[in-house]
Parts: sequence; structure tokens; C-alpha cells
Amino acid sequence: MAGVAGVEAGLARRRDPVDEALLEAVPANQPTVLHDATRHLLAAGGKRLRPVMVLLSAEALAGVDPDTVDYRRVPDVDGRHVDVLAAAVGIEFVQTFTLVHDDLMDNDDVRRGVPAVHRAFDDSMAILAGDVLHARAFELLLGTGASPARSIRALSRVARTCTEICAGQTTDIAFEERTGVTIEEYIEMVEQKTAALFATAVSLPAILLGHEAAVEPLAAYGRDVGRAFQIHDDLLDLTTPTETLGKQRGSDLVEGKRTLVTVHARQQGVDVDGLLGDDATEADIDAAVEVLDEAGSIEFAREHARELVASGKSHLDALPETDARQMLADTADHLIEREY
Amino acid sequence: MAGVAGVEAGLARRRDPVDEALLEAVPANQPTVLHDATRHLLAAGGKRLRPVMVLLSAEALAGVDPDTVDYRRVPDVDGRHVDVLAAAVGIEFVQTFTLVHDDLMDNDDVRRGVPAVHRAFDDSMAILAGDVLHARAFELLLGTGASPARSIRALSRVARTCTEICAGQTTDIAFEERTGVTIEEYIEMVEQKTAALFATAVSLPAILLGHEAAVEPLAAYGRDVGRAFQIHDDLLDLTTPTETLGKQRGSDLVEGKRTLVTVHARQQGVDVDGLLGDDATEADIDAAVEVLDEAGSIEFAREHARELVASGKSHLDALPETDARQMLADTADHLIEREY
Repeated sequence: MAGVAGVEAGLARRRDPVDEALLEAVPANQPTVLHDATRHLLAAGGKRLRPVMVLLSAEALAGVDPDTVDYRRVPDVDGRHVDVLAAAVGIEFVQTFTLVHDDLMDNDDVRRGVPAVHRAFDDSMAILAGDVLHARAFELLLGTGASPARSIRALSRVARTCTEICAGQTTDIAFEERTGVTIEEYIEMVEQKTAALFATAVSLPAILLGHEAAVEPLAAYGRDVGRAFQIHDDLLDLTTPTETLGKQRGSDLVEGKRTLVTVHARQQGVDVDGLLGDDATEADIDAAVEVLDEAGSIEFAREHARELVASGKSHLDALPETDARQMLADTADHLIEREY
Repeated sequence: MAGVAGVEAGLARRRDPVDEALLEAVPANQPTVLHDATRHLLAAGGKRLRPVMVLLSAEALAGVDPDTVDYRRVPDVDGRHVDVLAAAVGIEFVQTFTLVHDDLMDNDDVRRGVPAVHRAFDDSMAILAGDVLHARAFELLLGTGASPARSIRALSRVARTCTEICAGQTTDIAFEERTGVTIEEYIEMVEQKTAALFATAVSLPAILLGHEAAVEPLAAYGRDVGRAFQIHDDLLDLTTPTETLGKQRGSDLVEGKRTLVTVHARQQGVDVDGLLGDDATEADIDAAVEVLDEAGSIEFAREHARELVASGKSHLDALPETDARQMLADTADHLIEREY
């Protein structure tokens, strides 16, 4: 297993081609304001976890070397070349479309350290930029050069995932009005809103490249790791400084968002709604975190994430033993150890 | 050529299967509120022009009889069966997704005689219902059973059309802040916002069924007829009673929307912005229409629509002479003669 620096370097080297391809893939010939709104979040950077996982999964399946591979021409089981980078970019477009629309719905002001699209532009441009990213994602995923039958299977899965994400977001919004949310309900919501896209991202190369037996194990890895990622993300909202986070620390608590931590704390009798007011200071947030910690809720969430990562990694046994498979395993560990 | 009653009956008989299939195609297993928001406008009825044109185009190409055809099994050039009804429903989902999002952006309260989705539910549900319809449209269009290569071509066209519609809506919004919009600019906006989807709808069966030579003539028919449809729609906004229209008469004038009528009137020196205030009565609207009529702007728009319909019909010469082809021609005439 690689150390933290090794994993981060491994992720970074695959982020570079994604970063380069992302902005090139924004539709040209659009009105300037729409073009700018569509590029806005893509240009703001980001971890690119899902597209990097697409590349790693393709490497693991095709047995190619990241030093020499052309991600635009990864061989499938029949020797046909598939543009896996286009698929990776398509997945990041799906992710970005949902962020743009979610920020508008949740009235979040900052994303990736820059104003959210509806703040930098306006509500209409956020709706339209999201719609453009959504449509363009499908166009990119149709143009990988994979066998048409496999492309159709892959696309159907992505389309169903988009619908699932909308269901998850609806449930997430509904949770804000409910107090009796159970841990099972919370996890199911996370599965739809977050983990489904991880599962689709990481299994997409198996579909496109024709590695049938690997589709479901990779999807299972993605589903587990995606849930762990979200749980850890919720923990980071409590513990990471605002500057590092790129958005206000403790915002989930202030906004009354359900997280695994607060759902557990509520079950322990903590008055979660009374923890923080609208004008909470850093000290107030520290005190709230202390209460959640004493209720055992933070450790509960950490343990749950660790179990999911262990389960996720076990599904990788179905793949041949390669450096890329090891990177997928290490990435799973990294996701719940990262500090931002 | 069939009389008005004949055309309307011909459209109605093809609307029935579409109406039936539409609601069945709404994704199940969604949270109730999202499911209801997604169904809302679909269940409110509508002319279903674009999906009916998909069916008519398929009939004309496959030479099938509407009395006996199963639209779920229309033969392609190789004898394979294609679910043209799923394609028709997919096109109506695209149209409905754009309506749901447009109504939110334009703050329109009523659509198809019922409250717009963002009024009947809320802004978040309008964004999410639109996104579900968008994703589901692709899923439906992927599942027609057409040859995979043809499905991919068809889908790529639909995805590009979605991006084009967003560009058109952006330009339409930008026009509200501009006074010097030219007739050419207005027509280009209509081409993107409205005509592109007509072109895609009517040419889709040619792609899916393998009638290559018919793709571009049908797209050209759709583009002409779609522009004429929008121009006539703008005229109806001025002349059709609110009850019949399903939304407030004169709303385009009140909201400062550009239409071919107002762009022309402005060029004739009419003070279009001063024609109507926010609290316009029916009599005020009548007076405004009188001014536009005297400037020749209403006749200018009518003549432009007539020319587009004549041009659109001429492209149908590329198809074999069938009843369905005649219905497409008659439908084009009907679109600029209808009173609502």
C-alpha cells in the first residue's frame, strides 16, 4: 500500500489529463454568458475523484501503464480503441450539473472556493448551465467510440443514475423538515444522491471495454466507497477550517441538513436543532462538535465509513492484480483519511 | 388536402397512443412529491405536436397504416422492429423538461391551463422534475430497439438539440434587456429555442429506421414548420382569449418578450415598451393589438409564417407519396391556422 503522498501523487497525475479535457469539452458556439456559466465550476478546480476513478478502472481492466497509456485510445476486449477520457469527462459533467442545480436549490453561496453559479451569474444561468452540462455529458458519453451496443448499455446506466440522484436530492430536502430520520433512511438517501454516481463512474469502463464480469464488482466497490466518501465529507464539514473547505464550516448544522452524525446524535437524545443558531461563531461550532463527539456520534460515523471502505475494497478481488487495482484500494482508504 | 376537421381528427388519433404512453413512462420508485411534480405537466394534456410528428414521420417512411400499425413495432429498412412510440414520448419529455425550467426562469404562473410546476410545487421540485424528464428522455430514446449505431446517432442529435434549446433560451432572456434586436437575430433565436426540436423530432424516425436520404429533408421541414409554429404562437398570445390560451393573453407584451411582431413594430417606430403596463386590462390589450396591426406588424408575421410553411412542405417531396406525408403537409398548414 502506498503512503498518503503516493496516493495523492497517483490521483494528481490522472487529474491532469481530466483537467485539460474538461474545459475543451464545454460546447462552443453558445452565447458568451451561457458558455461562461457552464465553464464556471469546471474551471474552479476540484478533486475530480469520479473521473480519476474512471481512468483507474480502465487501467485496471485493460492492463495499461499510466506512463504510456493514451486515455483517448484504451483497447477493449476486441482490440477496438475507446476514448475513456471522454467518458471520464462526461461523468464529471454529470457531477457538476448536479452541483450547479443543488447549490441553487440549497441556496449555497460558495463552491470550490468560488461563488456558486447562481451567485456569480443568476438563477436562470444556473438552471441553463446545469442543463447544458447534463446534455453535453450524454453527448460525450455517446462519442467514446466503444461498440454501439456497449455505449447504449453504458448510457442507460448513466441516465438511470441521473434520475436516482434527483430522487436522492428530493429525499435530502424532505429530511430537513423531518426529525425521525433513521440511519437506514439516511444511508439510502446517500446511496442515491452520491454513491450511485461513484458506482456508475467506476463500472463504466467495464461496460465500455467489454469486461462483463467486472461490472458488478466495480459498481459494488463504487457504491460502498461513495457512501464512505459522503459520510467523511459530512465529518469534514464539522472539523475542517472554512478556508481549507472552500465553504463555511458547520454549514450543514446551521442549515439543518441531516448527516450520519446528526441522525445518530438525535437518536442519543442530543438536541441537534438547538446546537447552532444562524449567527454561529467559530467557538459555537467548536462547542457543537464537542457535544456531538461526547454523544459518540463522530466516532460512530467514522467507524461506519471505515467498514464501508473495507467492504468496498473486498470487491476489488474480482479484478486482476495490477498497480491500478492497488490505487483503487488506496484511494478508498484515502477518501476517509483526507483532511479536505 | 384534408379539411380542418380532417387534420384535427388525424392529429387526435395519433395523440391517443402518445397520451397513454407518456404517463406510463414516468420513472417509478421516486419519492412521491418528485413523481407528482414530474407527472404534473404531462398529465395536464397539450397538443403533443412533436411526438405526433414523430409518429407521422415513421408512418410516412415505413409505409405503415395508422389503423393497423403497432407504433411499438415499426419495421426499419432491415426488417428490425423499432419502438417509435418510445422515441415520441422521449421527444415530449425533452419538450416538457424545457417548459418546466423555462416557466421557472420566466416566472410564468400557468401552463396548459394548470399552475406551472414551480407554482404547484416549488422551485426545487421544478428544477428536479425537469432534470428527471431530461434524463428519462435519454433513457427512453436508448430503449427503442433500433440498431445500436442508429440509436447513437439519434441520441447524439437529441443531446445537441438540448444544448441548442438552452442557447436559444439564453438569447431569448438576453433580448428582454436589448432594444436593437433584428428580425434575423429573432429568427435565429426561434430556430434554436423551438425549431431545432421540431427538426429533431420529425427526422428522428428517419435515423432510427435507417432511411438515410430522408433525414435532412425531414429536418428541414421541421425547422421551417417549427419557426412558423413559434411565430403563430406569438400571434395567438395577442389574439386568443385567456381561457382558450391556457395562459394570460398579452403576457409576452407585458413581460417585454421579443416576438416577430414586436421586433417588426419597433423597426416601424412603434413604442412597443409603452404599449402595455403591468396592470393591463383586456381593453388595453385590444388597443395595443390595434397599434401593432396598423403598423403592419401582424400581417408581416403572418406572411413570414406562411412562407416558412410553404418552404417546409416543399421538403416533403423527398418522401414517397403517402397519406402520412399528406398529413405532415396538412399539419404544417394547420399549425398557422389554429386558433389555440
